[in-house]
Amino acid sequence: MPEYRTDLVTGRTVIIAEGRAERPQEFSARALPVDVSRCPFCPGHESETPGEVFALRLDRSRADSPGWRIRAVPNKYPAVVTNSGAYGLHEVLIESARHITLTSELSDDELADVFRATIVRMRAMYADPRIEHVLPFKNVGAAAGASLAHLHSQLIGQSIVPPDIRAELDGAARYRAERGTCVWCDLVERERLAAERVVLESPRFLAFCPFASRFAYETWIVPREHACRFEANDEAGLVELARVSRSVVARLESILDDPAYNYVIHSAPRGVRDDGSYHWQLQILPRSTGIAGFELGAGMFINPVSPETAARRLVGGPEA
Amino acid sequence: MPEYRTDLVTGRTVIIAEGRAERPQEFSARALPVDVSRCPFCPGHESETPGEVFALRLDRSRADSPGWRIRAVPNKYPAVVTNSGAYGLHEVLIESARHITLTSELSDDELADVFRATIVRMRAMYADPRIEHVLPFKNVGAAAGASLAHLHSQLIGQSIVPPDIRAELDGAARYRAERGTCVWCDLVERERLAAERVVLESPRFLAFCPFASRFAYETWIVPREHACRFEANDEAGLVELARVSRSVVARLESILDDPAYNYVIHSAPRGVRDDGSYHWQLQILPRSTGIAGFELGAGMFINPVSPETAARRLVGGPEA
Repeated sequence: MPEYRTDLVTGRTVIIAEGRAERPQEFSARALPVDVSRCPFCPGHESETPGEVFALRLDRSRADSPGWRIRAVPNKYPAVVTNSGAYGLHEVLIESARHITLTSELSDDELADVFRATIVRMRAMYADPRIEHVLPFKNVGAAAGASLAHLHSQLIGQSIVPPDIRAELDGAARYRAERGTCVWCDLVERERLAAERVVLESPRFLAFCPFASRFAYETWIVPREHACRFEANDEAGLVELARVSRSVVARLESILDDPAYNYVIHSAPRGVRDDGSYHWQLQILPRSTGIAGFELGAGMFINPVSPETAARRLVGGPEA
Repeated sequence: MPEYRTDLVTGRTVIIAEGRAERPQEFSARALPVDVSRCPFCPGHESETPGEVFALRLDRSRADSPGWRIRAVPNKYPAVVTNSGAYGLHEVLIESARHITLTSELSDDELADVFRATIVRMRAMYADPRIEHVLPFKNVGAAAGASLAHLHSQLIGQSIVPPDIRAELDGAARYRAERGTCVWCDLVERERLAAERVVLESPRFLAFCPFASRFAYETWIVPREHACRFEANDEAGLVELARVSRSVVARLESILDDPAYNYVIHSAPRGVRDDGSYHWQLQILPRSTGIAGFELGAGMFINPVSPETAARRLVGGPEA
């Protein structure tokens, strides 16, 4: 039976309507065959991107030449730039020198390196005092908005706090004013106890399908201990996050036929204190369900797989 | 140069970033070849849908048998139903007995019939006192979330007012409290005078690309005279709306390579009075730009074609 569900933090309402997963589907998005020899993100093609602002190199190779394992470059087609009204920085992080297309093709160590590089670039962006917020995100697959297949993520630093981060800040502030605690800390504890939507638990993180999931198999990875900034993670935290994220993504990739997903890292804007006003999270948003006229006209998502069903399948347990 | 723009009514912020239209694109969504003989929306296959709740028939053919020109049926995979928490009605309007896939393949008269049928179903839904709002919408093409190609639109009636309609009501109420006028009436007058974003003007309607367009070539069709309800249109209004809409959609279809778009009809919820608190509009949302991680993580759209450029191309005028 379809039901409305409201997100505890943002107040966002979704419709969980499981029967809709059975709809016939006449369309299918197919990736064009890619001529790897022309991929602008492959080693040897460094001149096809703007010059690198960071690279992880193990040898003494020069900037903008092969030898890198991870490479950060300004986005050639930026959404925001520093000499315009939409002031900001937009970078691409090429996550591997290999022409791979799925996150699970990275090892745990390589994904930890990606997170380390993300933090380096977040800190570099925040060094510009006009940058108020940095959003790291990833698009995998055409249905998730990727235009190039070679595995990469992006960072957009802006002079404004984006509306969805603002909604989270407002929701967290309201909750804290009412109850004196952090809404995400309470949520993590509640989800652990309920155990209905938990995908994976590690010493530092809880991965679960949120109660008001917008997308089928949507999964959030939230630190169990309060922390407002992703970029303040220590080495042990990053290594564990890489292991947990890779495990969740690998499960998603095996469940979804032609895996397309986004992930976004929500971290506190400049100036927010670590007092319970914010709690960082990594949100994984699989894109097997389209965003259609209803979603865009009503401002509500329809999700055909309940988070309880999604978590059960992601854990690999028996079907209900 | 990228710039931020904010919608006058809802306060929604978008980034207009024209350079991004030049991005290389490795992916392409292709429709699968469709076996028309199996289309559940074609005449002769009436038993594959739930029984009709309305049909336009010119002969004396029986319900749920061929002879119809437009046919309304409950959605077989509803997002909302009347015996659940997400209380509501979800119907499909099959817009033609011909297996056509583009709105422009309808004649002006046929599109007027579609609008007439839409009004019949909206009124029928509002006859249920628990229905607070009805949203008519259309998905054309896979990228717009359509699962079947045969031209159809949908209506979802809900027991709640959807968040985007609520945001418009709130924005309009704020504006009216400050200035005493309807925000859309002022907007129409302002756009007519500026003439930078106008696509088409008819005696009763203005079609223009909104200042804070979320999508490339987004176009709104707004009645020039104040009116809060689409379903209160008279015959002359519907005929003119059909002509204007079809003209705009045909221009979009000729500009977009593989046309995919949504349209949504925003009309006042139950109980709103026609006093300047609301003004109905038809919004056409082309889907050539994907919704990716940034959009879903930040809650902001990046639009690579400014509405000024879009309007110029839709009018067929010279490029800037």
